[in-house]
Amino acid sequence: MNETIYLLKAHRSIRKFTDQPVNQETVRELISAGQCAATSSFIQACTVIQVDDQQTRDLLCDYAAGQLYVKEAPVFLVFCADMQRHRLACSMHDAPMLSGFTEQFITATVDCALFAQNVLIGAESLGLGGCYIGAIRNRIAEVDELLGLPELVYPLFGMCLGYPAQNPETKPRLPVDVVLKRGRYDDSGDRASITDYDESVRNYYRTRTGGAKNDSWSEQISEMLVKEARPHMLSYLQAKGYLLK
Amino acid sequence: MNETIYLLKAHRSIRKFTDQPVNQETVRELISAGQCAATSSFIQACTVIQVDDQQTRDLLCDYAAGQLYVKEAPVFLVFCADMQRHRLACSMHDAPMLSGFTEQFITATVDCALFAQNVLIGAESLGLGGCYIGAIRNRIAEVDELLGLPELVYPLFGMCLGYPAQNPETKPRLPVDVVLKRGRYDDSGDRASITDYDESVRNYYRTRTGGAKNDSWSEQISEMLVKEARPHMLSYLQAKGYLLK
Repeated sequence: MNETIYLLKAHRSIRKFTDQPVNQETVRELISAGQCAATSSFIQACTVIQVDDQQTRDLLCDYAAGQLYVKEAPVFLVFCADMQRHRLACSMHDAPMLSGFTEQFITATVDCALFAQNVLIGAESLGLGGCYIGAIRNRIAEVDELLGLPELVYPLFGMCLGYPAQNPETKPRLPVDVVLKRGRYDDSGDRASITDYDESVRNYYRTRTGGAKNDSWSEQISEMLVKEARPHMLSYLQAKGYLLK
Repeated sequence: MNETIYLLKAHRSIRKFTDQPVNQETVRELISAGQCAATSSFIQACTVIQVDDQQTRDLLCDYAAGQLYVKEAPVFLVFCADMQRHRLACSMHDAPMLSGFTEQFITATVDCALFAQNVLIGAESLGLGGCYIGAIRNRIAEVDELLGLPELVYPLFGMCLGYPAQNPETKPRLPVDVVLKRGRYDDSGDRASITDYDESVRNYYRTRTGGAKNDSWSEQISEMLVKEARPHMLSYLQAKGYLLK
């Protein structure tokens, strides 16, 4: 295992930060590293909005289930899947851009995710820590309005970055044999593997919370997935020009 | 710039590989590093199918626009967004899982992308190279059938990995100020920036192809986006239980 793989395997979400500010040159360097991730057919469909203004951050915190690190983190970035830029590129050549395809939604979304993962890894390599904020999708239309996003631009997730003021353990992942299949999909051994894994997750929570939390992975999942998952997303995205066909 | 950021910025797709095989322990180590990426609400919704069988690889190559590296690369992985596993977890607790939400499609897809980016970065840190194969979505239903994917599992992209037998240049990315906005979305300077950037892309292609290719970025985009983008995707995904609401 080399240093980079060690870094990847040492990831854990950081939600508490010291007061030490992050240099803007560092932010730009991380964005630049983000841009170097692979991009589907070179579309480069990610735009990042860095939010510094405290009032805007407070609102974003409200929109994102009140997660305090959204307003407190030294750096807060919103990663947007952006095909508005392509409309501009097309207009530069009088080309009538076709949009609305689910495929374009996928490529723009994946572009954003690869970009963001580079940013986070780069940050972690510099001793920073951070976490993704999917909860901005709780009230995505309000986030959208706050950031002034045009058609074909949607906020996929936020990211907090800063110098860690906590040092949580890494969280145990599913056994490799559950997530890596050979040749064809075969989940015949998964129930047994998940049952074993459930115990390591239970131990992780028990140790970490002094016994207060005692969930297994499958319990946690089964409690979560009996609820609706942000049912406003489809109509929001369609109004933005995505997922129409 | 430290070693990790240097590595991230040095990324380029590798499509030609030496005969040197990749140790299976290395593949497992990379998968394990992939799993350590952030995962939305701990869902861990990525399953990787490693395809070694040559006949299957030949078919995948056909399905993916005949890209030869799909059959030739020492390692070929298919990254699948997988919520079948969560149905299993729910069934272990007699919980009626709700599915079909666009939000679940997003979280599973992003989970896959973050995982895959860790795998690729880990691979590059070991001196391997690779590329994403979005073209498996050209004939996604056939890929799906070939790999025996159940409901709620869809193949997002493939990935070729191996020791590089080529050393292409990195491709110039958009100026940082086009992709990084402060406070609010503002694209008023983008047309001018893209016009400048177009020239660097043109130079890149000219140099790399000895003048045969002479496209700018905006030209390339405008030629691509006047065509339909895999119009079968929505109905395929809905049949798999995604994007229904």
